[in-house]
Amino acid sequence: MTGYGPLIPPDSYEQRPLRQQVLERIRATGQAARIDIAKSLNISPGTVTQITSDLISMGLIEEVQAADTGIVRGRPRVALGMRADAHLVVGIKLSDVLDSAVIVDSTGKTLAEAALPCRPTLHSTEDILARTARTLDAVLSVGGLERGDISAIGLGLPGFIDNVSGFVHWSPIMMDRGVGLRDMAQKHLGVSVHIDNDANLVALAELWFGTERERSDFVVVTIEHGLGMGVVLNHRLYRGARGCGLEFGHTKVQLDGALCRCGQRGCLEAYVADYALVREAATALGWLGDPSLASGQVLEQLFEQAKAGNMAARSIFHRAGRYLALGLANLVNLFDPSLIILSGERMDYDYLYAEEVIADMRRSSIHLETPPPEIRTHRWGDLLWAKGAAALAMSGLSEEIISMASEAAE
Amino acid sequence: MTGYGPLIPPDSYEQRPLRQQVLERIRATGQAARIDIAKSLNISPGTVTQITSDLISMGLIEEVQAADTGIVRGRPRVALGMRADAHLVVGIKLSDVLDSAVIVDSTGKTLAEAALPCRPTLHSTEDILARTARTLDAVLSVGGLERGDISAIGLGLPGFIDNVSGFVHWSPIMMDRGVGLRDMAQKHLGVSVHIDNDANLVALAELWFGTERERSDFVVVTIEHGLGMGVVLNHRLYRGARGCGLEFGHTKVQLDGALCRCGQRGCLEAYVADYALVREAATALGWLGDPSLASGQVLEQLFEQAKAGNMAARSIFHRAGRYLALGLANLVNLFDPSLIILSGERMDYDYLYAEEVIADMRRSSIHLETPPPEIRTHRWGDLLWAKGAAALAMSGLSEEIISMASEAAE
Repeated sequence: MTGYGPLIPPDSYEQRPLRQQVLERIRATGQAARIDIAKSLNISPGTVTQITSDLISMGLIEEVQAADTGIVRGRPRVALGMRADAHLVVGIKLSDVLDSAVIVDSTGKTLAEAALPCRPTLHSTEDILARTARTLDAVLSVGGLERGDISAIGLGLPGFIDNVSGFVHWSPIMMDRGVGLRDMAQKHLGVSVHIDNDANLVALAELWFGTERERSDFVVVTIEHGLGMGVVLNHRLYRGARGCGLEFGHTKVQLDGALCRCGQRGCLEAYVADYALVREAATALGWLGDPSLASGQVLEQLFEQAKAGNMAARSIFHRAGRYLALGLANLVNLFDPSLIILSGERMDYDYLYAEEVIADMRRSSIHLETPPPEIRTHRWGDLLWAKGAAALAMSGLSEEIISMASEAAE
Repeated sequence: MTGYGPLIPPDSYEQRPLRQQVLERIRATGQAARIDIAKSLNISPGTVTQITSDLISMGLIEEVQAADTGIVRGRPRVALGMRADAHLVVGIKLSDVLDSAVIVDSTGKTLAEAALPCRPTLHSTEDILARTARTLDAVLSVGGLERGDISAIGLGLPGFIDNVSGFVHWSPIMMDRGVGLRDMAQKHLGVSVHIDNDANLVALAELWFGTERERSDFVVVTIEHGLGMGVVLNHRLYRGARGCGLEFGHTKVQLDGALCRCGQRGCLEAYVADYALVREAATALGWLGDPSLASGQVLEQLFEQAKAGNMAARSIFHRAGRYLALGLANLVNLFDPSLIILSGERMDYDYLYAEEVIADMRRSSIHLETPPPEIRTHRWGDLLWAKGAAALAMSGLSEEIISMASEAAE
């Protein structure tokens, strides 16, 4: 057969090659019969047979016996699954307090995990590369593996990251702006690297390994030190025209409003994220920022005060909740997703995730006879963000393999 | 060949049948060679040959001589184009001041136009049906045609409209809420009807007949009596999970802000749309709403006052411009489109569309090294909205034809 033409860059929302789409359906469902793939992608069974045969010869998938072991026309049912031993990848997430990593096989099974604490300060690019190498070697040592056993690395960090060019425009954990981090990391580590925004990683983790693998469209909002968003449309991360993902945390909710760490005013993040609450706590409660306390600890104390009836502490959470509701209502009005997943480690602050905030959000979004979007809260830990980075690596790797095979066939 | 399975409902952003995608590429480009279709959709030339042969036998497309009349391998170049005489459709747009209609053939050529003034008041469902019938018959009479000559009608009106179920949840020009308008209009007119939000129609008009036919992703913002938005992703209108489109005008830009005609507070529309400016003019300038003046006339007077140096009038436009910039910056941060088209009849108010507003928007959106979205202003008239309604009818019609052919083949 002839090839499918060159890969369209993922920064456009153009059609992807069918081979890529078929592979992703198989990965999403764990195992899939050819006829179900044809139905779900609206293509003919003949096309699916041709494409799956290509993917088998590329070593990406294999025939497996269907979980449903019924007999069809005298033969046991056959399905297609990912080839487990095809590739191992490492996912790494760098954050303000912890660097985490996982090793994952092609079926999504986690083989090893590691997490190393780090200092919550701005880092030089050299530091970031050193942290990445240290975290990589830690997880390899846990798994009893070497760098040469790994086919690709996914690296996630907060900020404005261009997955296509591998460029970090700005990150709240980095001193330098405008860094070609992917290529530098690739050279430093000697392994193929893919980078992305950490909020996109959470969306990828939900898409690949979460409970939403069968859902075509959903939105993930991450609420941590900052505020992030990942949008999945048609089983695929939507990254926008410039490939840097979407910046929910920097949507404006107040003209000339509170100062955000991005330098602009009135960003949602400046009302809702950890640092914004800590800043308010310092002002209203006279906490002058005990330098020995991490922001998480300050917030825990603030939350205790609010529960104990301190009106200033309550008002801090209350205002944050109202702005969060407004921001979420804007998401509903602009994307109309069927599901919004609120994701973060600190899902305990029920002033922020209470029924009241959800009700407030529903009051501020469009009313239709059809039900409003479902809202779920998932309390991801850092290792699951790292798993999203592994999904990024596996996705980048399979795109490369398919693209090279298609070019070779032309 | 076997069929492509059932049509996925357009309220999901799932994969569409390839036949539909191929047809839309041909329509978008005017005429296309098979090899270019294969490249643009990332499918094999063999698949394109099979699909175009199906579409020819359905009477939707035909072989035409390529505009580029070069000789390839001794034969004149052949391309595929829409079959002009395949179908005629009518597009109708109802608004607060004018009902407009066009008759369009399968290639997008306009055969007749008509526009009838109407009273700017809330209308009963019976009135809306009567207005639709009157406008339809007016344009048919201009074109020397009868209802039986028309294959489908596209009907656009402002509000929350579900294209899939044909349901009007709410419209600012209708008394009743929750009306199954599509089915009622179909019965009333005796012709197949498709309905949609008027802002979606403008996006469809740009996608089908505008200068952006080749662009895969863009956003249209309509600023008129209300504020609307249409989003095109992957050459296709994005309608969200509930199929009612996206509500830019009802995104909140101020907690507990100005009252909107939708009943909620702080909507962008309540700061920027015509009725909001007229309301401000009444308060600040003591205009108690001369009932003989349409809102357009009040705005023209207000604009004259602003140009003459009236500070209150200037401040009205200035504030509207700042909120519009904030709303547009939120669009950029959430969708990151490569192009935003500002569309409306009243693009003369340079306080709203000035360089200053665009600069303000750029200051409030994410800064990357890559260029920010391009902003264009298009001064559409009502007849071009009607042309979008015709595109809606043509699109619905071709989906029906392809779906029926696929079912018959199974």
